[in-house]
Amino acid sequence: MKTTPVKGTNDYLPKDAALRDFLKDTILSVYQSHGFEHIITPAVEDAENLDKSDGGANLNLIFKILTRGDKLSEALESYASGNADGNGKDLSDMGLRYDLTLPLCRFYSANGASLPTPAKLIQIDRVYRAERPQKGRLREFMQCDIDIIGSSSPDSEVELIVTTSRALEKIGIGGFRIKINDRSLLRGVLLGMGFPEDALDSVCVTFDKLDKIGSEGVTEELTEKGFDAGAVDKFKEFLAACPIPLDKIGEYTADPAAALRLQKIIDDVSAITKGEVVPCFDISLVRGQGYYTGTVFEVESTDFKGAIAGGGRYDNLIGKFTGRDVPAVGFSIGFERIFSILKDKSENGAHRARPRLAVIYDEGQVSGAMALADTVRDEYDVTLFVRQKKFGRQLSRLEADGYEGFLSTDGERKTFDK
Amino acid sequence: MKTTPVKGTNDYLPKDAALRDFLKDTILSVYQSHGFEHIITPAVEDAENLDKSDGGANLNLIFKILTRGDKLSEALESYASGNADGNGKDLSDMGLRYDLTLPLCRFYSANGASLPTPAKLIQIDRVYRAERPQKGRLREFMQCDIDIIGSSSPDSEVELIVTTSRALEKIGIGGFRIKINDRSLLRGVLLGMGFPEDALDSVCVTFDKLDKIGSEGVTEELTEKGFDAGAVDKFKEFLAACPIPLDKIGEYTADPAAALRLQKIIDDVSAITKGEVVPCFDISLVRGQGYYTGTVFEVESTDFKGAIAGGGRYDNLIGKFTGRDVPAVGFSIGFERIFSILKDKSENGAHRARPRLAVIYDEGQVSGAMALADTVRDEYDVTLFVRQKKFGRQLSRLEADGYEGFLSTDGERKTFDK
Repeated sequence: MKTTPVKGTNDYLPKDAALRDFLKDTILSVYQSHGFEHIITPAVEDAENLDKSDGGANLNLIFKILTRGDKLSEALESYASGNADGNGKDLSDMGLRYDLTLPLCRFYSANGASLPTPAKLIQIDRVYRAERPQKGRLREFMQCDIDIIGSSSPDSEVELIVTTSRALEKIGIGGFRIKINDRSLLRGVLLGMGFPEDALDSVCVTFDKLDKIGSEGVTEELTEKGFDAGAVDKFKEFLAACPIPLDKIGEYTADPAAALRLQKIIDDVSAITKGEVVPCFDISLVRGQGYYTGTVFEVESTDFKGAIAGGGRYDNLIGKFTGRDVPAVGFSIGFERIFSILKDKSENGAHRARPRLAVIYDEGQVSGAMALADTVRDEYDVTLFVRQKKFGRQLSRLEADGYEGFLSTDGERKTFDK
Repeated sequence: MKTTPVKGTNDYLPKDAALRDFLKDTILSVYQSHGFEHIITPAVEDAENLDKSDGGANLNLIFKILTRGDKLSEALESYASGNADGNGKDLSDMGLRYDLTLPLCRFYSANGASLPTPAKLIQIDRVYRAERPQKGRLREFMQCDIDIIGSSSPDSEVELIVTTSRALEKIGIGGFRIKINDRSLLRGVLLGMGFPEDALDSVCVTFDKLDKIGSEGVTEELTEKGFDAGAVDKFKEFLAACPIPLDKIGEYTADPAAALRLQKIIDDVSAITKGEVVPCFDISLVRGQGYYTGTVFEVESTDFKGAIAGGGRYDNLIGKFTGRDVPAVGFSIGFERIFSILKDKSENGAHRARPRLAVIYDEGQVSGAMALADTVRDEYDVTLFVRQKKFGRQLSRLEADGYEGFLSTDGERKTFDK
């Protein structure tokens, strides 16, 4: 039997599990204190729901679950007799979710009537992606999402940004920067340059690579894609003028309403946080997911590379289930990114909910040991240990494991030096 | 797109999620206060590990995950060309775990050296079984396990029973009864009657049905199975003498050591709980899993039918990974059973961690609303709501949803009557 966890998944020893519990509990309680409510959805979803969802590249990363019994036999027979279509679709009726947004939309369309309007919901749970295994790429990982469904007011964005910022502060991520943009504003700017409406997504995909390939790379790729030279030239000029402040972006678009909306969000967040969090307008922020329709945001740590949270408005997703569009906006904290940052910095026992004490007893005296442990259990997590022959070594181990000290059934007690 | 969760799984609305969080958090904190440490293992396991495990009937209920890319293409081609073996094994390289014991044994064999001896571990997590969908049978469900690995002392059983009892009390399961037995004692008794050693498992399988088919059913089935009439007669006499007290069971076996061990466990648990929990010896308690080697226990609620917790000693399981046997014993709380019991009894908001307050504000005034909410957030979970035209109806809804009252940005405030 294999003793290692399957590729792309992890076992978490007590120290790491304590940090994960701390992160999960802290994020959940900040979310809840800000009026969001926890819901739970299954890790498996219907295969068709997954296949038809707006998952973009993630649709290629779905773990599919094999059908069972007669269904499987029939499918295999049709392969054996050469009648199957060859893509394996009939072999799977469900799959593991690749994010929490699809289950959320399904959940809302089934249960919206029992929820307040707008519904402010939390999901903190596992998702699965068949990523090519490599360092830092997990196949099973946690996501922490808050979403506001049923309101198109920019107040929702404000609430999400303030709540997420406070969760990040509470878990000890001190320095961070929030970038904000609006897809519809970006589309307006691109239309103004002369790009055709049906090509805007393609232009955005290229623009999203600005960080990686630079201004020149972006204009080259747009030219390669065959876009009108005039439009690409205007784009080049625009890039040269970047960063463009929000109050100047109106010059580049026929529809500056989105800019005013963004400014209101930034002003409200700044007022609430007394200037400590000021979202920074960045017209180049696109975010990968195809389903965002309006605001998009992303949080960068000032101490570590890469995004630690992100989200945006997706006003068309729920309509896929309900047939009528419901406005929605969400923000997701990058749990695994933050876990890996804090894991390296945290000391043994740092994230335990309560301090630990050992009770040492002689084999056979468990009832006396338990009675002694009960006297201090209100204050400590108490572990019973049978006294070992090498008692000094036993105590060193306890100290190394983060115990504050020990009591013994024969009256000895000691607090370890810190 | 389908709006219902896949068969055998559930969506949990905020009220139900709050109860589940309460159960999970309470059980975890009682386990931790008694010196157990939380670990986390992946929900997916290697296909071979699952197939070769001691899962008994659960092996037929494994959700298997379809291979991807070239592996899948090759497997499908071999079906199309008629070269495959027909059981679909080459289509899957991993599967969803059907319990937490297999991952625990794998975890321990990989990480035992970093853990104290004995290791006292907690897992509270989801497992998956392809049960035939029917009322109360879930395909995705929670298990809450504590296990002590590396000690063959009966003190471990005492710790597990006391800790589990206290967790049950803390979550509000008042009346319960703990049954206890020892598989080796039962085997000794059956050997004494003349059943052959290699048939004892088969006899136990029949004996386990005593609750359902009664004494006569049991003896009939043993006769049908072709066992020696003399042995079956002795079994009949034995059944007639049941319940046999622990201090008399020695008369039926050549090896009464297990009876003394059980008595010590019962005495210690009774001493610790001051007689409130007295495990009740029941020679007919077998428990389903094939892997138990010694003590087995089961908790019955006095208010509700069926087991609400169970466990036992499995000294041979970890050896499958490590090549050398490591003693181990575990106790599992039936999370879903308890959830379904408490769900029907609990009022709205009963299991929230903190009370809730609403802040009502006028559209556009979100920063003032957030500032007002912040003044009471230490004490309450605070939700922002835009004032609706039908204000009275809005307040009724808040009260029904379990809010304690509201504050508004124009100075109005009210506490709802309870």
